[in-house]
Amino acid sequence: MLQQRSSRLLASFSHSLRRAAASELSTSLRCRSARAYSIHADASVGTSIQEIDPTKLGITKTTTPKGLLPPEELIFGRNFTDHMLSLEWTASQGWLPARITPYQNLSLDPATCVFHYAFEAFEGMKAYKDKEGNVRLFRPERNMARLNKSSARLALPTFDGDAMIDLIGKFVKLDQRFIPEARGYSLYIRPTMIGTQRTLGVGPPASALLYVIASPVGPYYPTGFKAVSLEATDYAVRAWPGGVGDKKLGANYAPCIVPQMEAASRGFHQNLWLFGEEEYVTEVGTMNLFAAVKNKETGQKELLTAPLDGTILEGVTRDSVLTLARERLEPQGWKVSERKFTMQELADASDEGRMMEIFGAGTAAVVSPVRKIGWKGRMVDCGLPDHTEAGPIAQQMKDWIEGIQYGDEEGHPWSYKL
Amino acid sequence: MLQQRSSRLLASFSHSLRRAAASELSTSLRCRSARAYSIHADASVGTSIQEIDPTKLGITKTTTPKGLLPPEELIFGRNFTDHMLSLEWTASQGWLPARITPYQNLSLDPATCVFHYAFEAFEGMKAYKDKEGNVRLFRPERNMARLNKSSARLALPTFDGDAMIDLIGKFVKLDQRFIPEARGYSLYIRPTMIGTQRTLGVGPPASALLYVIASPVGPYYPTGFKAVSLEATDYAVRAWPGGVGDKKLGANYAPCIVPQMEAASRGFHQNLWLFGEEEYVTEVGTMNLFAAVKNKETGQKELLTAPLDGTILEGVTRDSVLTLARERLEPQGWKVSERKFTMQELADASDEGRMMEIFGAGTAAVVSPVRKIGWKGRMVDCGLPDHTEAGPIAQQMKDWIEGIQYGDEEGHPWSYKL
Repeated sequence: MLQQRSSRLLASFSHSLRRAAASELSTSLRCRSARAYSIHADASVGTSIQEIDPTKLGITKTTTPKGLLPPEELIFGRNFTDHMLSLEWTASQGWLPARITPYQNLSLDPATCVFHYAFEAFEGMKAYKDKEGNVRLFRPERNMARLNKSSARLALPTFDGDAMIDLIGKFVKLDQRFIPEARGYSLYIRPTMIGTQRTLGVGPPASALLYVIASPVGPYYPTGFKAVSLEATDYAVRAWPGGVGDKKLGANYAPCIVPQMEAASRGFHQNLWLFGEEEYVTEVGTMNLFAAVKNKETGQKELLTAPLDGTILEGVTRDSVLTLARERLEPQGWKVSERKFTMQELADASDEGRMMEIFGAGTAAVVSPVRKIGWKGRMVDCGLPDHTEAGPIAQQMKDWIEGIQYGDEEGHPWSYKL
Repeated sequence: MLQQRSSRLLASFSHSLRRAAASELSTSLRCRSARAYSIHADASVGTSIQEIDPTKLGITKTTTPKGLLPPEELIFGRNFTDHMLSLEWTASQGWLPARITPYQNLSLDPATCVFHYAFEAFEGMKAYKDKEGNVRLFRPERNMARLNKSSARLALPTFDGDAMIDLIGKFVKLDQRFIPEARGYSLYIRPTMIGTQRTLGVGPPASALLYVIASPVGPYYPTGFKAVSLEATDYAVRAWPGGVGDKKLGANYAPCIVPQMEAASRGFHQNLWLFGEEEYVTEVGTMNLFAAVKNKETGQKELLTAPLDGTILEGVTRDSVLTLARERLEPQGWKVSERKFTMQELADASDEGRMMEIFGAGTAAVVSPVRKIGWKGRMVDCGLPDHTEAGPIAQQMKDWIEGIQYGDEEGHPWSYKL
């Protein structure tokens, strides 16, 4: 039995390894074990592990298509399209042929490891309809790369991101009637990887399911921006160096709810996670955070966000904001920084009139302007004038990014036309 | 919609609150928000939330009873009994009547929050058959209290532990034919709490399922103790102050697998989690850790384990070992300590001939002796002579605890006769 288990473990292990380029365990993990990995890979797997082959997709269409909701009744993640995309994986066979089926319940043994040990990782991405009615994804290769990193960190299987984008494209095109045409609407796509092994032993799952569901969504701010308030959380800690806070794992979400409810009970929309005695500003849990401040000495404008030190989710919107800022704001004299900064630094900028604006960045809202941050019994004003719901950089970023997402900006490499 | 969501949030919130005694968010959480909590509790809930009522249990027996496996073929958590116990909870109604049904798959919408955000907590406990054929649980109130703490930390519902023990007792008695009579055998019981809300919004689940499955298991060491080797992990972190490492959440398990596989790839049975620059010894992920060392100055024998500082699971076996050591070893001159200790301290004790023994403590094995710990390229010897698989304290603890579990020690308050 020990031997069986051991060879299963290694099969799964080495499968992950074959994706070393995509999978990125931490560098230190890789370095420390390169020798052991390659020995196992040679000894235990051979050529039997299948990659995803999009040409083997099987499609079973629904016989009871859903009616479309009026666009104004769409609520994020509550209603789903007619179909779902699923791929099963086993340690001995690799990826079995993908299937598109009617949207349906998963039937799982109560001992399945996803229920007990949180073998689960996910992505959030969107499809948009452009003026010509084409459906477009936004930087989907980033989501696939991140899901591979997340999965590898949990000893779940990795996969060929391009093949998966191909399959997601077919699924989205099949259900494209659910994407409202109007600007601001989109189809939220949720790729989800779960471990499906049906035993309670704590070890790498020998089977997994990668599935994708999709929910049509309206604009995050239907009547224009509404700036939010955040409460800086100093009594609980979301992530730690050497932990998994930089991966998009289920494990990072449930523990955030009580602090979020705490903040809500005091009238804040969300909580902002600080780290360490220095009270470094990290992220919002569902969004990365950007601040635009003027330098105390030089007056130079700086757009800053926390660095990817292992405690911050590597947001696709975060990267998009940074890239656009470097391309388009730096030539206007801005400094763009990924660096640690503290709550005190923000409070000082606010007190000294150097705070320009703060906004969150994420797939759901693109950008989400922040009016104030509650911190240590005081309120840090984030620079928005009264009756103004967004600063100019937040507005500019939303316009730029949506312009690419909806295909207004022709031929931009971030927009993936299906 | 915002209002709906808000009142749902508060209903769930205040339900948790009604269990304040059992639920223990962190003390700081409670203190900071006592006012807000009580306002909401008054405003939104009233008397509609139902407690668990064991008298309302409904039982549907299987019509296809399983055959019993030969005891020697039992593998931990792989085969289950005929039935399962389930209780549904909704934020508006509270706990619906418990049901015992044939063991069966869960059918869940693919958007269910347990798959995406790790709304899941669990327990591990055992039922034993005594010489008279009575079935006994071991300190079940501890498991129920811990599941309540774990659930509250994830905004999942809490419950009356005594009512739940009553129901678990009925379930176990119904399936007691699965518990082998021989010493060392038992029925592993897995209470599991999952969030069942079928939407992708990140918030407190408005519905949940508490279910219990049970797996007959053989002795952890069928042919007597086998001392294990551990690798001290310094490149990844299991838990941190202000995090959730002291709760029994799924979220704490999947991230431990890759470091465990890393250790296995270098020939170790498990990894040992260190914390901080000081390299404090914490726990094994599936076990707490005890070390018996002689004091450098006085020669006094000390049994030490890491303190419950928020990074250590509050193991039932850990507490049992500590309690028995204080009762029965302190009078023999031992010192029993819950205190921080470093890997260096263990290495020094080993180098200086003061290391007596090290063992893990958990429900599965009761105690698990450790022969050596790999640390920074060296091997720390844990004091076991060659060809000896357990030290005297590990052996003594196993005998004491099993004596209580199997009812040899008549009338001990830790043994709960069904």
